Amino acid sequence: MEGLHMDKDRFHKQLDFLVEIDKLKTVLRQSLIIDKSKRENSAEHSWHIALMGTILYEYCDKDKVNLARAVKMALVHDIIEVYAGDTFAFDLEGYKDKQEREQEAADKIFGMLPEDQGIELRKLWEEFEAMETYDARFAAAMDRLQPFILNYHTEGHTWKLGNVNSKMVYKRIGVLKEACPDLWDSINEMIKDSIEKGYLKE
Amino acid sequence: MEGLHMDKDRFHKQLDFLVEIDKLKTVLRQSLIIDKSKRENSAEHSWHIALMGTILYEYCDKDKVNLARAVKMALVHDIIEVYAGDTFAFDLEGYKDKQEREQEAADKIFGMLPEDQGIELRKLWEEFEAMETYDARFAAAMDRLQPFILNYHTEGHTWKLGNVNSKMVYKRIGVLKEACPDLWDSINEMIKDSIEKGYLKE
Repeated sequence: MEGLHMDKDRFHKQLDFLVEIDKLKTVLRQSLIIDKSKRENSAEHSWHIALMGTILYEYCDKDKVNLARAVKMALVHDIIEVYAGDTFAFDLEGYKDKQEREQEAADKIFGMLPEDQGIELRKLWEEFEAMETYDARFAAAMDRLQPFILNYHTEGHTWKLGNVNSKMVYKRIGVLKEACPDLWDSINEMIKDSIEKGYLKE
Repeated sequence: MEGLHMDKDRFHKQLDFLVEIDKLKTVLRQSLIIDKSKRENSAEHSWHIALMGTILYEYCDKDKVNLARAVKMALVHDIIEVYAGDTFAFDLEGYKDKQEREQEAADKIFGMLPEDQGIELRKLWEEFEAMETYDARFAAAMDRLQPFILNYHTEGHTWKLGNVNSKMVYKRIGVLKEACPDLWDSINEMIKDSIEKGYLKE
């Protein structure tokens, strides 16, 4: 008889967590999706960057980046937004209390899981946030590249919204240059093109 | 100078693919998300099952299932819907031409990628669809469990919509029993509870 010795309390914690994170599908980001029909939510964004990492893995240092870990980070990196909401990348005001809000949210959401798993995922999220390891830098590069691509294809929607200039974009996307140096020429061309087309201020 | 020898044509194919799959965020499924505020789309669903696989991996045979491959399958398993649309699990009519529609869609979407990557992802999708390998069965189990959980938490929304009975649910979720036998007792209890509460017909 299988299943008799299974820890049902453990499974129910996992299940409650999986139910709770369903809310990420309602956390709206500033970005429009490419057809401009709606704002993107953080669940969609997380799926997109996880797949983006899979497709663009060849441009990072494969000896140093563990793709499976980076993908896991991508899947998990925004779940604290279930409580903390999304903070617009170019919202300096919102960034002031971002860390405090997010730490509280992390206590709550990761605390729903069985202790070992909660600790593991929280560490992974903290690693992502710190952007110090190769895995985290690659995941962060995807996290920055994805809204960049949405912006490029929606005439700079959030750049215009946030009154963003190219210096701010260069700063924000800098981690991509570091994690995937071979992509830099192409991305730089897209930034210059965005300025030329009026999507982005010089 | 980095980047000089990079194959830009290759990157542009990858970029076009990553832009095209953005459309998955508009492919609506029959399921409601748990707060009932909207129908779920296939990008959100893919994120949810990829993370679900990460959380529930301990219940499968870890010697046989490669989690990274199963997660990749989860991320990719629905992208043909960009062209083929979502076919409701309990729509027998829609299932008649499902395979033909999806093969054509697969030609088109995977064909956008550089050949090596297109072939790799198409094979992965075909492996998922065939449900013969351990990785595919675990990914499929998550793909069946996820809408089951949404149904359980929305008073059987799509079960009522499709006039579904418990026999159909048992058949559809059978792969979970096989891939994660230790979970079966708990899931079976939820099915019985759903019948009792009137979410699902006997």
